Amino acid sequence: MDFNHDDRTLDLIDRVEAFVHERAIPAEPVLDAQLAATPGEWRFRPVVDELRTAARAEGLWNLFLPGERGAGLTNVQYAPLAERTGWSPRLAPVAFNCAAPDTGNMEVLADFGTPEQQAQWLDPLLAGDIRSSFCMTEPDVASSDATNIATRIRRDGDHYVITGRKWWSTGAMNPDAAIFIVMGQTDPDAERHRQQSMILVPRDTPGVRIIRPLTVFGYDDRDHGGHAEIAFDDVRVPAGNLIAGEGEGFAIAQARLGPGRIHHCMRAIGMAERALALVTERANSRVAFGRPLAEQGVVREWVAESRIQVEALRLLVLKTAWLMDTVGNRQAMTEIQAIKIAVPRAVQQILDRAIQLFGAAGLSADQPLAEMFAGARSLRLADGPDEVHLNALGRAELRRAPRA
Amino acid sequence: MDFNHDDRTLDLIDRVEAFVHERAIPAEPVLDAQLAATPGEWRFRPVVDELRTAARAEGLWNLFLPGERGAGLTNVQYAPLAERTGWSPRLAPVAFNCAAPDTGNMEVLADFGTPEQQAQWLDPLLAGDIRSSFCMTEPDVASSDATNIATRIRRDGDHYVITGRKWWSTGAMNPDAAIFIVMGQTDPDAERHRQQSMILVPRDTPGVRIIRPLTVFGYDDRDHGGHAEIAFDDVRVPAGNLIAGEGEGFAIAQARLGPGRIHHCMRAIGMAERALALVTERANSRVAFGRPLAEQGVVREWVAESRIQVEALRLLVLKTAWLMDTVGNRQAMTEIQAIKIAVPRAVQQILDRAIQLFGAAGLSADQPLAEMFAGARSLRLADGPDEVHLNALGRAELRRAPRA
Amino acid sequence: MDFNHDDRTLDLIDRVEAFVHERAIPAEPVLDAQLAATPGEWRFRPVVDELRTAARAEGLWNLFLPGERGAGLTNVQYAPLAERTGWSPRLAPVAFNCAAPDTGNMEVLADFGTPEQQAQWLDPLLAGDIRSSFCMTEPDVASSDATNIATRIRRDGDHYVITGRKWWSTGAMNPDAAIFIVMGQTDPDAERHRQQSMILVPRDTPGVRIIRPLTVFGYDDRDHGGHAEIAFDDVRVPAGNLIAGEGEGFAIAQARLGPGRIHHCMRAIGMAERALALVTERANSRVAFGRPLAEQGVVREWVAESRIQVEALRLLVLKTAWLMDTVGNRQAMTEIQAIKIAVPRAVQQILDRAIQLFGAAGLSADQPLAEMFAGARSLRLADGPDEVHLNALGRAELRRAPRA
Amino acid sequence: MDFNHDDRTLDLIDRVEAFVHERAIPAEPVLDAQLAATPGEWRFRPVVDELRTAARAEGLWNLFLPGERGAGLTNVQYAPLAERTGWSPRLAPVAFNCAAPDTGNMEVLADFGTPEQQAQWLDPLLAGDIRSSFCMTEPDVASSDATNIATRIRRDGDHYVITGRKWWSTGAMNPDAAIFIVMGQTDPDAERHRQQSMILVPRDTPGVRIIRPLTVFGYDDRDHGGHAEIAFDDVRVPAGNLIAGEGEGFAIAQARLGPGRIHHCMRAIGMAERALALVTERANSRVAFGRPLAEQGVVREWVAESRIQVEALRLLVLKTAWLMDTVGNRQAMTEIQAIKIAVPRAVQQILDRAIQLFGAAGLSADQPLAEMFAGARSLRLADGPDEVHLNALGRAELRRAPRA
Repeated sequence: MDFNHDDRTLDLIDRVEAFVHERAIPAEPVLDAQLAATPGEWRFRPVVDELRTAARAEGLWNLFLPGERGAGLTNVQYAPLAERTGWSPRLAPVAFNCAAPDTGNMEVLADFGTPEQQAQWLDPLLAGDIRSSFCMTEPDVASSDATNIATRIRRDGDHYVITGRKWWSTGAMNPDAAIFIVMGQTDPDAERHRQQSMILVPRDTPGVRIIRPLTVFGYDDRDHGGHAEIAFDDVRVPAGNLIAGEGEGFAIAQARLGPGRIHHCMRAIGMAERALALVTERANSRVAFGRPLAEQGVVREWVAESRIQVEALRLLVLKTAWLMDTVGNRQAMTEIQAIKIAVPRAVQQILDRAIQLFGAAGLSADQPLAEMFAGARSLRLADGPDEVHLNALGRAELRRAPRA
Repeated sequence: MDFNHDDRTLDLIDRVEAFVHERAIPAEPVLDAQLAATPGEWRFRPVVDELRTAARAEGLWNLFLPGERGAGLTNVQYAPLAERTGWSPRLAPVAFNCAAPDTGNMEVLADFGTPEQQAQWLDPLLAGDIRSSFCMTEPDVASSDATNIATRIRRDGDHYVITGRKWWSTGAMNPDAAIFIVMGQTDPDAERHRQQSMILVPRDTPGVRIIRPLTVFGYDDRDHGGHAEIAFDDVRVPAGNLIAGEGEGFAIAQARLGPGRIHHCMRAIGMAERALALVTERANSRVAFGRPLAEQGVVREWVAESRIQVEALRLLVLKTAWLMDTVGNRQAMTEIQAIKIAVPRAVQQILDRAIQLFGAAGLSADQPLAEMFAGARSLRLADGPDEVHLNALGRAELRRAPRA
Repeated sequence: MDFNHDDRTLDLIDRVEAFVHERAIPAEPVLDAQLAATPGEWRFRPVVDELRTAARAEGLWNLFLPGERGAGLTNVQYAPLAERTGWSPRLAPVAFNCAAPDTGNMEVLADFGTPEQQAQWLDPLLAGDIRSSFCMTEPDVASSDATNIATRIRRDGDHYVITGRKWWSTGAMNPDAAIFIVMGQTDPDAERHRQQSMILVPRDTPGVRIIRPLTVFGYDDRDHGGHAEIAFDDVRVPAGNLIAGEGEGFAIAQARLGPGRIHHCMRAIGMAERALALVTERANSRVAFGRPLAEQGVVREWVAESRIQVEALRLLVLKTAWLMDTVGNRQAMTEIQAIKIAVPRAVQQILDRAIQLFGAAGLSADQPLAEMFAGARSLRLADGPDEVHLNALGRAELRRAPRA
Repeated sequence: MDFNHDDRTLDLIDRVEAFVHERAIPAEPVLDAQLAATPGEWRFRPVVDELRTAARAEGLWNLFLPGERGAGLTNVQYAPLAERTGWSPRLAPVAFNCAAPDTGNMEVLADFGTPEQQAQWLDPLLAGDIRSSFCMTEPDVASSDATNIATRIRRDGDHYVITGRKWWSTGAMNPDAAIFIVMGQTDPDAERHRQQSMILVPRDTPGVRIIRPLTVFGYDDRDHGGHAEIAFDDVRVPAGNLIAGEGEGFAIAQARLGPGRIHHCMRAIGMAERALALVTERANSRVAFGRPLAEQGVVREWVAESRIQVEALRLLVLKTAWLMDTVGNRQAMTEIQAIKIAVPRAVQQILDRAIQLFGAAGLSADQPLAEMFAGARSLRLADGPDEVHLNALGRAELRRAPRA
């Protein structure tokens, strides 16, 4: 049993940490100014492009991707890096080309794409030349139950024709999001987990219609392409755009989820660490009722509770990453579900406490806390609400043979 | 002991409820459209003016104000009406001219204003011709401790000169907010609770400078005048603008708080009731994993927990109102603090559960839940964070002579 | 709306409070000594008999029972008296002949008993000459679902023959518990809520066998007759012992529950008040880390949270009592379920905090807290676990026609 | 980073697990019967002696003790073994001679004792021939603040004279507890952490008076020697009985705490695992409202929440153990405090849920849950209440230099 990171990871932690603290965080007010100056724009702002150029030059690029195409890191190695990017969630992940949904989409293409698909879409994504979106959730059904998905992908000769409506397609408001991975039903009569497929739909295909942006607690997330509602009206793409094969949609989705959850959870832990750092600074400098906040019992209690939560949950994510690396995603299912449930809500609570300590400033854009809160809150719904996972985890636990 | 409302109240409940359900809630999408069409505007939109005209014609106007100038209701009588306005927090309170901060400001003017002050500012506020703002919180100090307030109000001959900076001045972005009530220090050497005074500052006084709007999560609250940061740079007003007398600021603030908390808490309970109604509708119509959500254990549990919280807390607010009516605000201090602490956080939790049930739609502007959440969340900081009140309530409780 | 108690109630509150503080609480160490001296005994100890004599002489007797046979109080009138008896749960309820399960059994006999049944069993119970037990819960089934109850009550000529096993028959270890009310199945083929009946079984009937006492967190509750497991092996009683009629068992049980829950909840609130009084005394006298506990933030926070919970929940119980008095138990079903769920767990939490403040002394018999905790904890299971009630309350709420 | 146990540990886990499941758990009802038959006895019962003989024969003895005198395991190696002993907290730790307070006392003697002290007391403790007690907590002061300790240890020629009163001296009711380690003040004028010393007091020294046993909830813990209140009235022992030197008491106490917390926390996690195993068995076999409990949402949710808590906290304890092994107890202070706070309360909650699922049986002695609950609950007070540790952890965290 060894809780040390290896040397390569320690070196990368240092470099990522330096980049985040010296470049990304100081760039946040610049981004705010650029956003304020360009209200109708959904593309990357200049400061983002500058950070990406700098990170790539430093070799901090595609860290998330295992294998030769990426940095070749294991989940255990990448996890602490993802955590550091969570300190500046709007700028650091994207600076390293490690932002969702591109990461998951690149993984899908790397693992399941044909050489042609990879050449056409994966390479420019890895190069940072285009962006992408993932179109799974639908407005009219409870899509946490994948069999509810109603978008149809119908074979028609050498083509597939896609009809349906998606929403919460993150990044899709950005005109540079050139490629959409769409989940839909190819065979309603197949066995439950073989009904769905995934297909590549270029943004400019006729019939693709961006309906509107959605907001999260008032935030439109324009800096990273927002969240779109999209209609697919008889959208026709070549049959070669199907990924992996008909009926593989559910399996690809599952494969995509494991690393995605590690990344989300580690970034969320990074958000909690940033919140704690801000709280520490504030508590030591702010005086109320004759004493610094840092000397008041309730503040210490909050900080202690937050520290305990962060330490325990980080270990759980790291163990999950280690299980994925050593025994595979399927054997790590309980742990993957556990972190999906436990981390976002703990981080939501930590951010709520931090907001409380900052007072009204914490609710405003003067601090990153409220926007981080919205992000952590939405993680409790992304990929299915906590309750679906709790139920599944509980059922699995109750089926294990006990030794009582 | 009698838990019935009296006949006048029952009649008003019916009428307010009808107005809210038949006019205010249906006007919400209209407001959204008008807001989308006028991004730089902070004034009332046309739909608000129409609702106000209609409500006034129906005699549903200034219900919050006791005495002859208002509807003459007690706190116990007004409380259930305030609750109903909470179902549509953006439209119903303002429709009835019962929206903060105007309500508190009108109370201050009614209770402490000179006839001249009342003629100049109270009458047009009661008539709905102007709006107002309350300038208390400051960016640089922990203003939950009123003695920290640093804005200076200096006597200079027949005038007072105000210097300082305020923020979270709700409504002040609206150019129709013609009058600001400003809290500041007149005598730093006076006894702790006699240092502060309140003074009337017309918006157009030289030296008053609106610096910027603030956001709560991502909401700018443009529909009701937003929240402003304001600089007061050597702002000179006639000495007659002082309210009640030098050193009275703290006492006026305390007097303003009691009714304000009843109103806020009852509206928050109304938000929780709206959320429960939305949840009920959704849970009965949405199917996941083969059953309506309404048949799933966790949904029933949430609804039951929410119902219990709402029932218990409504009674506590009503009892507080009754105490204020019968023994006075000072004797109701424990209860006023109790509801200030307990109601917003319970409503925040109820809204969080409702969002979870609605999935991503709950986070968006397609449902009122996320914006209500932001409102309830900010109540936990308004007039001082919960923790300050918990501490004061605990201290008072520990000083009561026990009979053990 | 009026939150005042009427004059009769105020007078009784004074008298009950005086008795509890001047006689019952001071008698607690005497009871401890008498219990220590008589380890194998399950009858009342002398100090209990003395208190009962005194209370009866003061007219503080059978306060729980409405109508002419009892004190004739409404639920709203009795509720605050029950609360005061909760301060000394081992001595005050029994002193006033207001202790479970006798209270519920007397109500059943008063409401559903024949004159013969009343003469034989109700009169001596009212006089305090005998005690009783209620035999409903069974060891082998989930008896929160009454249709699971497996004890059989079979007609055989002029007799009924009872066969089954019960446990948690409170008070039944006391040899003076002369009469048992037994719930069992008379017709397994009847409609779901008509299968069960209740029957009177004198303790000394052949076939009644006390198997063993049960403990609750190590407490055997010897002072009030403990909790027994009882076998009924072909127990034969006259047909006239059936209460109300075959198939009425479920209805009688429901009728018995409403007042029982008011009583339990109010006593639990009284326990919380006693805990708060003890905490106050301790926090003001105990010094740690250079300051009295009363000056430490977390202690104030606990006390404040506890006070808020107690105030809100007391009102909910009182409103429930008022609804039962004015519109009947059936119309008060939501509230009855709500208090059954909310009060015991809040009181458990308050007691847990009080124990924490007292340190190890709080766990021991030197303070009443741990034993009260065991009592409050067991209320969360008595008459069905919280979860059954939450589910039923949620289901009912979700069926109400919403006005959204 | 590696989450695997090494081979020696895996082998010991298998052997300990087999012993616990095949010998200790089946012996629990035997212990109950022997306890019932010997109400006034505080010594080991025969079944305990048999288990100890068997365990020693299998080489499962003194596993807790590092170095040559014990099994030579690191904290990381011992932790999973301690967890397994938590499944049967009354029998397994004592069977392996790994039960508190003997473990801590043996560590003190091994680390700080003179050869004479070791020969006289450590050797018979290691051999299991005697038992011991640790006398630190005092009834009259808040002993979580060690400087409050009032017992005096006064030098008098070749002797020390001890005067004071202790309670919660675990195991001391057992006449075989031959030696007491007593903490007391040698120099009230010394620097805060140099005032206290520890000294060895043989049980039979004149002036040592066992006053009474204490109970935890209703449990007297007779099987492992109970908890005693003890008076030390001018107790005179040779100066050579002092451990390590005057003023070393605080340092020894600190050294004793680290391993003790690892042991307590891992055993508590074992209790939680046993509870989960019992819950699984029950939930799959018990039917209510037409379905096994295992198919009911709230049960799955409890089980899932419990599993998540256990997994995260076990990792935190293991990391703490690893830090103690690799960088030392002082560097692991934050983690040691974190597990002290987080584990017992989580386990308390898991046991509370398990009790709820078992219904009234869970409160009784028919299941181990209520007694385990009492044990977990008391851990929240042992070595200082959670709140003291939260405060210290929060203060330390707020003093770390942040990088925000």
